[in-house]
Amino acid sequence: MPVNRQIHLVSRPDPAKGPALTNFALREVERPRPGPGQVLLETLYLSLDPYMRARMYSGTNYAAPAALDAPMVGGTVARVVVSNHPGFAVGEIVESAHGWQDYALSDSTGLRRVDTGAAPVSTALGVLGMPGQTGYTAMMHHGRPGPGQVVLVSAAGGAVGSVAGQTARLAGARVVGIAGGPAKCAFVTGTLGFDAAVDHRAPDFAARLAAACPEGVDVYFDNVGGPVTAAILPILRERARLLVCGTVSVDRDRPGVAPALPSMQDLLSAALVRRLTIKGFIYTDPELMAMEGEFRTTVGRWLAEGRLKYREDVVDGLEAAPAAFLGLFSGANFGKLVVRVRPE
Amino acid sequence: MPVNRQIHLVSRPDPAKGPALTNFALREVERPRPGPGQVLLETLYLSLDPYMRARMYSGTNYAAPAALDAPMVGGTVARVVVSNHPGFAVGEIVESAHGWQDYALSDSTGLRRVDTGAAPVSTALGVLGMPGQTGYTAMMHHGRPGPGQVVLVSAAGGAVGSVAGQTARLAGARVVGIAGGPAKCAFVTGTLGFDAAVDHRAPDFAARLAAACPEGVDVYFDNVGGPVTAAILPILRERARLLVCGTVSVDRDRPGVAPALPSMQDLLSAALVRRLTIKGFIYTDPELMAMEGEFRTTVGRWLAEGRLKYREDVVDGLEAAPAAFLGLFSGANFGKLVVRVRPE
Repeated sequence: MPVNRQIHLVSRPDPAKGPALTNFALREVERPRPGPGQVLLETLYLSLDPYMRARMYSGTNYAAPAALDAPMVGGTVARVVVSNHPGFAVGEIVESAHGWQDYALSDSTGLRRVDTGAAPVSTALGVLGMPGQTGYTAMMHHGRPGPGQVVLVSAAGGAVGSVAGQTARLAGARVVGIAGGPAKCAFVTGTLGFDAAVDHRAPDFAARLAAACPEGVDVYFDNVGGPVTAAILPILRERARLLVCGTVSVDRDRPGVAPALPSMQDLLSAALVRRLTIKGFIYTDPELMAMEGEFRTTVGRWLAEGRLKYREDVVDGLEAAPAAFLGLFSGANFGKLVVRVRPE
Repeated sequence: MPVNRQIHLVSRPDPAKGPALTNFALREVERPRPGPGQVLLETLYLSLDPYMRARMYSGTNYAAPAALDAPMVGGTVARVVVSNHPGFAVGEIVESAHGWQDYALSDSTGLRRVDTGAAPVSTALGVLGMPGQTGYTAMMHHGRPGPGQVVLVSAAGGAVGSVAGQTARLAGARVVGIAGGPAKCAFVTGTLGFDAAVDHRAPDFAARLAAACPEGVDVYFDNVGGPVTAAILPILRERARLLVCGTVSVDRDRPGVAPALPSMQDLLSAALVRRLTIKGFIYTDPELMAMEGEFRTTVGRWLAEGRLKYREDVVDGLEAAPAAFLGLFSGANFGKLVVRVRPE
């Protein structure tokens, strides 16, 4: 029989230990055959993103938990290999979200045709996809960067942070990035064009941060949470915006595992005294989703003009997905992490 | 010599104990005489407000610390008793901010004439003054209450909370108040017209709160901070607004004294997953100050029509100010706390 390889979520993480390779298993099932109105998709690229960690647990975060004994959820770029749908021709490239598997059926719901002339198709999962859209729309809408403003971005070399920070720079702000290690910091300033970068692994991180932001911070775009965010609280200026995009350093489903941090009252008191705005969001919030067209036009133009850069960390083979995914939480990736499931 | 009694701040609070009566002293000085362009003001009412606690310490909060060996700072309502200023006649009533003393000079800077026909002049320190303006403008601008929304207000019977909650009710929201003890709770529902009230002193406070807000909370107007606010975090709905107006239950200048609370990461994670907006503010923020005229017109009309109620807790005599002020932090007051320095 024609085979479809799938990586299933087969158990939920032990809350004492967090996600592990044993939560996943590679299984082979029969390749599905498209019925009337359906297309068969062949996966080219699979997106690995920090938000997936929360989906592994049984609790509800943004969305319902990922099902057990089914392909792990996630965004994909795929080729149409059989089409019984009048809107899609064989050979077309689409953005889908059919998870960790070689093949999937679709009735076209949620498919988005990818412009293969604009950029490599993998960018539909990164700079021109959900992460880029998140970084651009939230920075513009909630951050309101501009000349005279100091914008700080954590996980600055990553899929979301790199777009968020470059957006602020192109809007005229002074932009400082936080990244892990000298190589990522060099990329953030040298390639992405941030004004400065600070290594959160440095023992004197707080002092370096203060030196990089001598006048404080107007916008902090937070992808990490935890001790890094606690270190930034003292340098937020009056009326600063703290944009809560992610908490990659903290597994929210493992209570009590995070290191000791200031209390919620410290954050509320700082919010009061300095009149901060703290804003959690996802890119599907209506006010951000309304900016999708603006995002595609603007970031597409910046890319074409060479004014906005991106970096992908490509891992080969579906079977490599679980280990690569777990590496996200130790910062093992360098750039937007994607799995190349098969060569284009 | 004609005397001017003043209550001076003579020492800063011991951070281990917080503000105490011994930080204040009544002193008598010579009554000042107005020079050219000046008026002599005779204090009628003195406002006592929680924000003054932070001014007693040497750290900077909103504003510089109150000076030692000078009258304690605060809003006042006064009568013009001598005038060398063409804009103010003897006998006129003004809102001023000359602090805890019987008499003061002014060159008219910061004076606001009080409409003596509209309401008792003491209301210029409460429902028609800074607290009312804070409650109305922040609730309308940051809270955006309306039909179908659930609004929760702490210190609901107090100067700010009573206006914030009634504003939300008059805007069509369902409004729940939190207050200390059965009498205040009865006032919040019976007089102020809130839909429900919850006693934060009840041992089963969290359960009562959940029962009063079965569908969760869209807007929490926080005047207290601390454990009450921690108890509310779990019932904030998606896209709720947490408006940080005050922290009367927590002395921000006494680090480590507050009871154990969830960490700042718990608040940030909740903000992310439920896309909360957490907003600190003061009434002088530009976007709120721009609503001053709307506040005076709207709340003035609501008062005149009997649709908005208020309660004052009047203490007699300048010398009573320190003890009455300290009572704010144990909830000893019942309504907007003012000192009647002399009969009108």
